[in-house]
This record gives sequence, C-alpha cells and structure tokens, in this order.
Amino acid sequence: MHAYRSHTCAALTKENVGESVRLSGWVHRVRDHGGVLFVDLRDHYGMTQVLCDPDSPAFAKVEKLRSEWCVRIDGTVKARDASLINPRIPTGEIEVYVRDVEVLGAAGELPLMVFGDQEYPEETRLRYRYLDLRREKMQSHMKLRSDMVASIRRRMWDGGFREYQTPIITASSPEGARDFLVPSRLHPGRFYALPQAPQLFKQLIMVSGFDRYFQIAPCFRDEDPRADRSPTDFYQLDMEMSFVEQEDVFATIQPVIEGVFEEFGGGHKVDKLWPRIRYADAMKWYGTDKPDLRNPVKMQEVSEHFRGSGFAIFAKLLEQDGTEVRAIPAPGGGSRKFCDRMNAYAQKEGLPGMGYIFWRDGEDGMEAAGPLAKNIGPERTEAIRQQLGLGKGDAAFFLGGKPASFEAVAGRARNVIGEELNLTEKNRFAFCWIVDFPMYEKDDESGVIDFSHNPFSMPQGGMAALEGDPLDVLGYQYDLACNGYELVSGAIRNHQLDIMYRAFELAGYGKDEVEKRFGGMVNAFKFGAPPHGGCAAGIDRMVMLLADEPNIREVIMFPMNQRAEDLMMNAPGEASPEQLMELSLRVIERE
Amino acid sequence: MHAYRSHTCAALTKENVGESVRLSGWVHRVRDHGGVLFVDLRDHYGMTQVLCDPDSPAFAKVEKLRSEWCVRIDGTVKARDASLINPRIPTGEIEVYVRDVEVLGAAGELPLMVFGDQEYPEETRLRYRYLDLRREKMQSHMKLRSDMVASIRRRMWDGGFREYQTPIITASSPEGARDFLVPSRLHPGRFYALPQAPQLFKQLIMVSGFDRYFQIAPCFRDEDPRADRSPTDFYQLDMEMSFVEQEDVFATIQPVIEGVFEEFGGGHKVDKLWPRIRYADAMKWYGTDKPDLRNPVKMQEVSEHFRGSGFAIFAKLLEQDGTEVRAIPAPGGGSRKFCDRMNAYAQKEGLPGMGYIFWRDGEDGMEAAGPLAKNIGPERTEAIRQQLGLGKGDAAFFLGGKPASFEAVAGRARNVIGEELNLTEKNRFAFCWIVDFPMYEKDDESGVIDFSHNPFSMPQGGMAALEGDPLDVLGYQYDLACNGYELVSGAIRNHQLDIMYRAFELAGYGKDEVEKRFGGMVNAFKFGAPPHGGCAAGIDRMVMLLADEPNIREVIMFPMNQRAEDLMMNAPGEASPEQLMELSLRVIERE
Repeated sequence: MHAYRSHTCAALTKENVGESVRLSGWVHRVRDHGGVLFVDLRDHYGMTQVLCDPDSPAFAKVEKLRSEWCVRIDGTVKARDASLINPRIPTGEIEVYVRDVEVLGAAGELPLMVFGDQEYPEETRLRYRYLDLRREKMQSHMKLRSDMVASIRRRMWDGGFREYQTPIITASSPEGARDFLVPSRLHPGRFYALPQAPQLFKQLIMVSGFDRYFQIAPCFRDEDPRADRSPTDFYQLDMEMSFVEQEDVFATIQPVIEGVFEEFGGGHKVDKLWPRIRYADAMKWYGTDKPDLRNPVKMQEVSEHFRGSGFAIFAKLLEQDGTEVRAIPAPGGGSRKFCDRMNAYAQKEGLPGMGYIFWRDGEDGMEAAGPLAKNIGPERTEAIRQQLGLGKGDAAFFLGGKPASFEAVAGRARNVIGEELNLTEKNRFAFCWIVDFPMYEKDDESGVIDFSHNPFSMPQGGMAALEGDPLDVLGYQYDLACNGYELVSGAIRNHQLDIMYRAFELAGYGKDEVEKRFGGMVNAFKFGAPPHGGCAAGIDRMVMLLADEPNIREVIMFPMNQRAEDLMMNAPGEASPEQLMELSLRVIERE
Repeated sequence: MHAYRSHTCAALTKENVGESVRLSGWVHRVRDHGGVLFVDLRDHYGMTQVLCDPDSPAFAKVEKLRSEWCVRIDGTVKARDASLINPRIPTGEIEVYVRDVEVLGAAGELPLMVFGDQEYPEETRLRYRYLDLRREKMQSHMKLRSDMVASIRRRMWDGGFREYQTPIITASSPEGARDFLVPSRLHPGRFYALPQAPQLFKQLIMVSGFDRYFQIAPCFRDEDPRADRSPTDFYQLDMEMSFVEQEDVFATIQPVIEGVFEEFGGGHKVDKLWPRIRYADAMKWYGTDKPDLRNPVKMQEVSEHFRGSGFAIFAKLLEQDGTEVRAIPAPGGGSRKFCDRMNAYAQKEGLPGMGYIFWRDGEDGMEAAGPLAKNIGPERTEAIRQQLGLGKGDAAFFLGGKPASFEAVAGRARNVIGEELNLTEKNRFAFCWIVDFPMYEKDDESGVIDFSHNPFSMPQGGMAALEGDPLDVLGYQYDLACNGYELVSGAIRNHQLDIMYRAFELAGYGKDEVEKRFGGMVNAFKFGAPPHGGCAAGIDRMVMLLADEPNIREVIMFPMNQRAEDLMMNAPGEASPEQLMELSLRVIERE
C-alpha cells in the first residue's frame, strides 16, 4: 500500500465498503459521542468521517489528536447507518473505522481556526496565511483563480494566440505610475526597473512579426495603499494583434471574457450584447467611464427646463459657459423620505445638495412634490417628467454646474439609487465597451494640454486630426466595463512615427524627449512597424467579480498587506552591509 | 473587405485562383525579372509571391518597396506556371498579381538582414532584436518555446495539478545564489528581494493544503556572466505534491517530460527507460552527476590490477588512503595516435596525463600496446582487458589519485572519447535519474561539514540517520540528467522540525539561526505540515535541448547580453535624484 494514502478524502463511497484503506489529511475536528470519537479528516479534495471506539487499537492515539494535525490513518470502510447519511458530501454514505494512526505533522495552539466561520483580523490571517488558506472559502477562491487563468489560456490558444514571456528585469516603462527599481550590481549606480506592464514589449513583439501575442503577465507598480489593489503587483491578461482595427480586438476578446464568465459565473446571467458607449455619453448618462449597466438608470440633460426658470440657483448657473443641469431619474423613489436621504447623500459627498421632484397621488390624480417643482412651476415640471418618462411613485434628482464638478457624485448617486430602489439587477454580469476616449485634456487651472489616457494610442483620423483642436481628438482607445468596474483597457496603437511625434508635440513633448524616453520603441518603428492593437484585462479584478469579493487580498495566494509588507516572510527586510556595498548603495538615515 | 487582410501569407492555394485578395506583411525580398517585379511577402504564417508588371497601376509604388517595409497589397490570385510551382511552401502553386499597394510602415537602412543566413554580431542582434526575431530560425524557436510551455501546462493540468502564482516581490530566499534586491519606498532602508525560486512558497502551498501545485515560474539570480545562462532570470517548471515519496514524483514528472520531448523532439528517439543511478555510481561511472547516457562508455575501478604492480606511479599512489585507479574504456580507440591525443587532452585539462593501453594485431594474434602495458606485464594487462570487456582495436585510459582530483576531467574525457569515436548516439534524448545524493560534504582543507546540496531535503532514514557520520547521510534528493545536462532537480522535503533543526545543527547552524533565516517556513511547520516533495525543471534548458541551441539567448525573446544589459531598452539606466530620494538611497561613487 502507498506510504500515505490509498484514496483521497473525497474518494470513498458505498462501493468501497469493506475495504482496507489508508487516508492522509488534516484533523478538521474531533467529536466525542459517548466515548466514540469522530474525526472529520480533510484534504484538498474533501472530507471523510473517521471513527474510533475504545475497542480500536488506535484509540489512545486518536484521543490525543487535535485540530489541524496532519495524520495518516489506516482503517476499514463501513456503511453509515441510514439515519447518519450526509447527502451533501460525496463520502456521506460511509465512514472509516480506524485501526492505526500516524501523526505526520502535529500542530501547536492555533492562532486561527480552519473549522467554522469565525472572523479574524486580516493581519492574523496574513501572518498565518498557510492556516487561513486551509479554510474552505480560500481553497475555493484559489482554485477558481487557477481554473480561470487556465481557461483563459485555453481560449487564447484556441484563438491562435501564443504566450510569449517578456522581461521582468528591464527598463523603466512609461505607464505613468511609479516604478520599482532594482539596483544593478554589475553596473554600479545604475538601475533596472520592474515593468509596470509589458506594453512596450508587446508592441515590439508585433514589430518582430509575431502577429498574435498574449501573456498572463505580472505588472509591478509602487502604489500607495488602497483597499482594492495590491500595493506591489497585479496580473493581467495582456494581448496584442497585428493588422487589426478596433472591432477585430473586440471580436477577439469578447468570446474569451464572455466564455470565462459563463464558465465560472456560478450561473449568473452573462450579457451577450455588449453595447458600445462613447466616452462622452458614458460620462453624461452614468457619470463614469465604467458604468454598471445592471442599473437601468440613465441620466439626462434637462438644462432647457431650468433656463430662465424660477429656480434661481440653476437659472443663474446656466448663464455661465459650460454648465448644464442633469437629472437622475429614480423610478420608484417617489417619497420625501427617500428624496431627503439622497439629498443628504449628496451633501455628504461634498455637494451643496441635490434638488429633487417626486410624483405622488394628489387630489387631482398625480401631483409633483418637492420645493423645486414649486419653483419652476407645473409646466416645466411636467415637461421634465415627460422627458424622463417618469410617473407616480417616481422621483428625479437634479445636479447643476460644470459637469466635471458633479459628474462623479452623480455617478455614485446613481449607484445608490439603483441599490436602494432595487433597480440594479442581481446575479448578472453586464458589459459595455467604452469607446472614443479623448486623446487630450486641458488642465483647468494651468490651461496646459496633456494626454488624458494612453499616449501611444492612434488618434482617430490620423495626422489630419492632429491639425485641429487637440481637445476634439478622439483616440482608438477603449475600455470594457463590467458591473461598474474597468475590466479591460486597450487601444489601437500609434505605429507611425510622424503621427507619434506630432501627438506628443501637442502635449508639449519635443521629438528629443520622445526619443529619449521611448527610444526602444521609437527605434523599432523605424524598421517596418505593422499596424497593431490589443488590450489588457485585469486578472485579479475578474476573479474578484467571479468570487464576489471586494478585497483583492481574498483572491491572491500570498498578498502583501496594505502597508506593502509580507508578515509571514518578513518582507521588506534589512539588507546586509555587504549587499549594499556590492550594489554601491548607501541608505540615507532619516531623522 | 478587412482593412488589412483577407488572408494570411500562408493561406492562398489553387482553390483561391481568380479571387481578389488583400494581404499584409513584410517585403522579404524584391526581385526584378526583366522588368517584372516579384515580391516575397512574408508574415508570421508564411510567404506569398506577389508580382507586378509595368501594366499594373501599382508598378511605380512597388518599384519603391524595400526589404522589411510593412505593406498591404490588393491583388488577384493567379495559378503559377507549372514550371514555377514551389512544392515546399503551401502557397507555392499561386502568386498574387498586385493592383494596389499601401505602405503601412517603411523601413530605414537595415542594420541586419532578415532574408538570408548572414551572421551578425550578437550585440547587433540584441540591439535590433525586433529585426533579428523576424528571421525564420528565431520565429521558429520562439514558437517552439511557447508551444512547449503550453504543452507542459496542458500535461500538468491533466495530471490534476493547478497553477498558483507565488510572489515576485518578496523576501530573500535561501537558494544560495545572490538576490536581486528591490528597495522599499514605504519602508525606507528596507528591501524586498526577487525570488531565486519559489521553493519556500511552494512548500507553504503544501502546508496550506493544496496537494498539487505547479507554476511556470520566473526565477531571479544576480549571477556573474556565463555563456549558457541568463545573468538575471530564468524560467522553471516548478511543481510540488503532498503525501508523496520519491517514486511518486518520478512517476508524475516522467510522462510530462517524456511527452514534451516526444512532441517537440523532431523525431529524435526519446528513451522510455530512465535508469536510476546513485550519485556515487554516477561519479564513479561517468565522472559527473549529469551523465550523457547516449555515450555507452562506463568507467570502472581497476585499482586491484595496479596495486603492487610494476607501474610505480599508480602502485605508490594506491598506498595512500582514499585513492584509486579508474579506467575509461574506449571501444574502437585502439590506435597510438588516438591514445596520444587523449593523453594530450588530459594534460591540457591540467592533469599530468592519462596512462593507456590499446589492443592491436600482433604477431601471435592480439597484443597489448603502450608503455603502461609493458610496466604491469601481460597478466595484469589481460585481467584489465577482461574486466573492461575490450578487444582488438580498443583502448583504455587510466587515471589515478583521489577521485575528486580526476573525476571531472575523466568525465569530460569520456565525452570526448564518445564524440571522437562516434560512440555517442545522435538524434536521441537519453534520460537518467540521479538519486541518493549525499546530504553533507566536508571541506578538504578546513574539515568543516556543510550541506552539499539542498538543506531542506529529507535525510534518508530520518532522525536516526543523523546520529551517525554526517558524510554517510543520503538525502531524498534527485536530479534528472538528459544528454549531459541537468534538466530537473528535486527532493522530498524535510517537513519535520526536529529533524530539520538536527540537520542544520550538523552543518553548524543553531536553532536560532534556522529560525532567523527561514522563519516563515519554520513557523508554518509548527501547524500540521504534510510530507511533501517535488521538483523543478529548467524551461530554458529544455528549449535549448529541443532547439539544439547551446546559447540560451537563442531561446529567449528579449534576453540580456552577457553584461546583463538590455541594449534595446537601455537597461540598466540612471535613476533620477527624485527616485533615489524617495527610496532613501544614495549611490556611492567609485574612484
């Protein structure tokens, strides 16, 4: 017989009754039922009930077992009494009568119980991650992550993509975040950088003629702590294709993402229709470029109804350039209580408040209520109601000013309205492509023009487009939003050097600067660069959505804590004087 | 029609004759046949012949095309004249008569030709890697690497393994090489390290109850330059299993490796029988722990025949402790010329020389020749011949002393003999497991005992074995050798803390030291550690063997040069004063 096991802890069924078996695993818990000891023996695959009565030669040993000891047991499979059958687990019809036990690894007092649902502080969980990971939820999350990544790879291979590994110890990459530096020993005083993304390399792979690339790629950014991101690194499905347009990228990646959500979405509805929404419309309708389309609420501009109206605040505001009034319809939100709550929400978010109108039963049928309705009068109120398609029992909220000043709050208010009024569908993954991102933005205070997103995207209209107002230039750049998160981001790249130089010039970067900062890519583009484009999808984010976990550390095997420390391995740690000497570095002592 | 292509450059056949098509790719070369221009248009998939005569509206444009320009062409598929059919390529029966051309990306003067077999200095190739990678050989190597890794993944999944990603920004790992350090910004003066291997993490994954782990894992070592290794990082197939013994690991990994070599070995013979050779025997028989078993030559100890013999050098030498005389049989090497050449080889390798005997036609049938035969006389000579199983036309070489002093040279001489006498089989992959590695070795000069290989391996015989002579202790540690290279290395791990403390004590490390250096793992082993073991296989090495490339840079997409520089991306580079300030670092200027 094998030294450790004849079966896993999920394998034995009624078929095995009478067999001598050997199992190995962890003592999940021990129960004493009137002198008979029941051990739930757990391994990666499942759980088997082991029992031992005082007649067993192993009784004295079994008595000593404690939770999370790793043990091997020898015994005989018995059918359970009909009344004791557990139909919820595959081994629920049998139990193993133990003849012998060997302790493979004892355990001291546990800082964290694997059995049960007790909550522990995250620091405890991370310090004893190997215990935390034994818990059912964590086992299941890690399996999900692994299986999802495997499925993505299969789908990409099936789509004619090959995975190519790009360097991890390399040069600084121009993603705009902070690099992790790696001091070079052989070149004192010089530094490598860990890649923020394989962006440059994947473009070079296209210039090298490889046509279709993907990689499950680690990306490194020295980020300041935030709950929903890792402070050091994250993984993305990175892909790139040559000789493609935007629609080719969409047609390639949609079946991959859709398939993965179908496969691992736990039966939730996965939208097949992925609307394309222009960036400008997304901001207008949803107040964000990553709208949650499970929420049917769509904002509308209602400026006309307030221009010159009796609601002086809006009327005056609309006299200024670039202002507007936007309405958030709230079907079913037609009560003063709800409207006041939303108004308070807006104040908490830093706005002066949100005007509202709601429609209720009145003496002559439906009546519009709220101070705003009174101010603008019944005709305008009714016109608004008709524009928004609302009726009795509904409400609408109003925000005015320059869109940039209220859009973000409006977007969040829309989420709250969707949640509170139960408008946001559950158990559904709703996707949309956000397209037509502007290439440039102007800093309101300084008036300086800079890239608003990826400077390497191809401007729509090419060189000609760069001759007009930069703020009118749209890029072949796109995001995929799912349930309010940005899941994918990508672009058709600018592979033409003259257009690239011009694009950077508009943002204030001279040719010299471009060649200095992006020399590797610029040089490559001088030797027959193909048109190409692609995207990157956040692996951690996808697992978080599929596992319904808002905390990224729940879907990473060994994450850093929010102070970028690994408490288990004790990182970061001290470097020895010899190491620093070899690297020609000195640490500056801070006061 | 699609903006760039209706077909790839490998797709068109006689079936398409008459069709209007659009192709994109690179101008491989242009030939002018009496005013008719032939363009070989190349993409990732293949090559299509495009032709253009002066009647074509595109003639003026085609005339201007140069090698490696990226172009789109529109044209009509025509059948080639029977005499012009090229059966070696899928598109060899057709050509495309071009109607229109668009230059997608022009190219300047090429520092390196893609067409043809011209050799270029490695520095040129690495600086213009994107051109180098367009060459057929590099395309094929990169595809091989990608396909091999994909195949490994499929095989591991099929074996019930899941891939789990381990941290890349982490703590120093105890693999014995030099770490790459990553300064922490949030913790001034402290450093992360890039993992030399995921060894600790994969063991923690086992302690976490995951049973079967694998990863195609990047490993980082700050190595001094050497031709056959990357100075920064390499990839390994890393795997680990719980509740296993050595034979389970062998039975799991053999089909994976064997399958990959069958699949990508280009029809070379792949040995199915993988002998297990004890480390001590490997050193004795082959002079190395990574023998090339395609070479049938096996060394033997022949001390007895020289003890007290007339060959004074060996006879005297054998009076000292720990010495022996070993023979390298050389079937077919029975000529003075060959024997002298081998003797000269040994001298070049730093030995005083190699004694030899060879057998040739003499007056009374076979006679033994060479000075050594004369010195020891016919009886001993004949006994040696019989022990080695040699005959007329064969030779044997002799080395004496402490084995450590000559084994390495003997091993290399064995390789030379195998090559020169055509004994080493070609077109074959020969594998063997090297087992029973000693746990400890003694430094000859200082007499200090230290670990000879991995300190985390389980000693055979467990605690009891650690009570005797440390030099007698063998570990459950193993390597897989293939054609003279170490392909895999692994061990059953020591998961029992008391045995681990004792094992380290024998090598001079106290309990405190172990807890300080390996605290993460030591702590984990206090909470129910399962028995576990695994191995790691070198990905780069496997591709090198399959591609028959001795240079690791031929099988890596974007390798560093031997001075650990990326000439294309200009790494390592300068860090800005702001970056250094944020990291609390100062560079020490060297004189």
